[in-house]
Amino acid sequence: MTPHPLLEAITQGTPAVRRRAMAKAITLLESTRPDHRAQADALLTELLLHTGKALRLGVSGVPGVGKSTFIEALGIYLIGQGLKVAVLAIDPSSSVTGGSILGDKTRMEQLCAQENAYIRPSPSGGTLGGVAEKTREAMLVCEAAGYDVVIVETVGVGQSETAVHGMTDMFCVLQLPNAGDDLQAIKKGVMELADLVVINKADIDPHAATRAQAQITSSLRLLGFHGNPEHDPHNAAQWRPRVIQASALQHQGMEDFWAVVCEFRQMQTANGRLAARREKQALAWMWERIDHGLKQAFRAHPQVRALLPQMQADVAAGRIAASTAARNLLAAQAG
Amino acid sequence: MTPHPLLEAITQGTPAVRRRAMAKAITLLESTRPDHRAQADALLTELLLHTGKALRLGVSGVPGVGKSTFIEALGIYLIGQGLKVAVLAIDPSSSVTGGSILGDKTRMEQLCAQENAYIRPSPSGGTLGGVAEKTREAMLVCEAAGYDVVIVETVGVGQSETAVHGMTDMFCVLQLPNAGDDLQAIKKGVMELADLVVINKADIDPHAATRAQAQITSSLRLLGFHGNPEHDPHNAAQWRPRVIQASALQHQGMEDFWAVVCEFRQMQTANGRLAARREKQALAWMWERIDHGLKQAFRAHPQVRALLPQMQADVAAGRIAASTAARNLLAAQAG
Repeated sequence: MTPHPLLEAITQGTPAVRRRAMAKAITLLESTRPDHRAQADALLTELLLHTGKALRLGVSGVPGVGKSTFIEALGIYLIGQGLKVAVLAIDPSSSVTGGSILGDKTRMEQLCAQENAYIRPSPSGGTLGGVAEKTREAMLVCEAAGYDVVIVETVGVGQSETAVHGMTDMFCVLQLPNAGDDLQAIKKGVMELADLVVINKADIDPHAATRAQAQITSSLRLLGFHGNPEHDPHNAAQWRPRVIQASALQHQGMEDFWAVVCEFRQMQTANGRLAARREKQALAWMWERIDHGLKQAFRAHPQVRALLPQMQADVAAGRIAASTAARNLLAAQAG
Repeated sequence: MTPHPLLEAITQGTPAVRRRAMAKAITLLESTRPDHRAQADALLTELLLHTGKALRLGVSGVPGVGKSTFIEALGIYLIGQGLKVAVLAIDPSSSVTGGSILGDKTRMEQLCAQENAYIRPSPSGGTLGGVAEKTREAMLVCEAAGYDVVIVETVGVGQSETAVHGMTDMFCVLQLPNAGDDLQAIKKGVMELADLVVINKADIDPHAATRAQAQITSSLRLLGFHGNPEHDPHNAAQWRPRVIQASALQHQGMEDFWAVVCEFRQMQTANGRLAARREKQALAWMWERIDHGLKQAFRAHPQVRALLPQMQADVAAGRIAASTAARNLLAAQAG
């Protein structure tokens, strides 16, 4: 089998050729045409051999916390350190709004202008699962193209955090320096996922930022720690979530942030957890896509489509037991 | 179609006939033989017409909190009020341990001796989903047999709480009167589900119980409230989770407990939430069983079984993208 024509351009092209090839590859991967899909799968398998060296960094936080500014400041800092940085996004709402994050070309202007930065808005369309799949695949393109750090941004609402946590090596949560906010994040279970919490906009109110830092540190000890098996406080060889301050608008705190990230990467590589996390993520991703495919085929089956409305109405009205309805529908599909 | 022979015995038999018929029906519903399953589905559909009048009460709490003692004291109190009480259980571990809750015949001895009580241990076998389905179906048998209150007990670990919450009208969490404990429950997300929290064993340390009551009340306000759309604190027509004290071993607090339950039932009936919750539960149950059935058929498919080990190994080793593996496996099943 001859290699896919885009492969060489992505892995060995000049910057301009590479960038065009990346865009073409990602467009191909996002296509829903069956013949494109077969090509895309072939390309993906070839690309995979060239992936795995980048650090995958998730960045989350409620709207208004300053995610774009933070990512831009971080990206510029990292490029200054000689690294190549890709920024992707997961925003399941973008199909409706036309892209609420990263869709606006005027955002991250400084970072966009850098040769060593690659920024791609959230894929649009459909379910979170579909959007997440496209972003995962785009991540592999960036890795094959030699980007050292792939940052995946999330809108900070709903289940998109879990999706980003499920595809990154390290999950960072940005927080505002105000006391009520941390409870909100704990409640939503996002804090439990955090490997690193950043109190952003710390310059606005340094005292509040320090209070928030102490409060979140203690909350993480009480709540988050026990929830995530990767954060066992009794195991010294395991990572303990850290809380730091930053002021991205002032480009402050990027060096500290990156030092923690490097420490995390070193520890997780040494204790084998980085590799284990990636393996677990890949298998979970496979099963998630299988589940999705099974449900899609089920709902599209003509006999199921014919029977479903009546079954749902009967179940809702208590005329038929839910388990009986499920068995009837499964039997309809099986023919 | 002639009615199922067990139907009349369950709905109109003498106490002894009824009890035997219930046991037979539940055994039939638990059977995995395909011919039994067809009979069971027919019976279930007939039974359904006679269900819906009972109150479905979930009781959860960590091991050691005194769930059995509480349920026994409550059952005896309710029977004293002229009600008929059924007690079921969900314990997915019972297939391994041979029944860690309610399996032991010496437990709930006093309640067992009552003519108006029906106690059934957790169905054994397999997944939580399977155990939950059998318990849901047994609940319908109890309702058709005229039991006024069906109590579903959970082991208080893992996901069984979510399963019990998903099949009951009201979800109660028992707590020990000690300060650290509530954080444990909040962390696990169980508190968010609670419609009513009971500080049990309050007689052992009344001061600690009162402190725990205040603490959990405030925690619920901060955390739980916002998490569960059924507990909107800004909507006066909606239920706000309550925290009370009890000492089940002394048979204290049962009257208070039941008063709160009756208040809940009245409010949720008036505002339509009880009916809406049951409808939502039934539809969720249907989809849960469909998902389970789809996955089971997928894993049992010969082509999938032949391909799966290699695909999993390739995905884990990074030789093939997870989404490509998923598509290959789905294509294998589709033939």
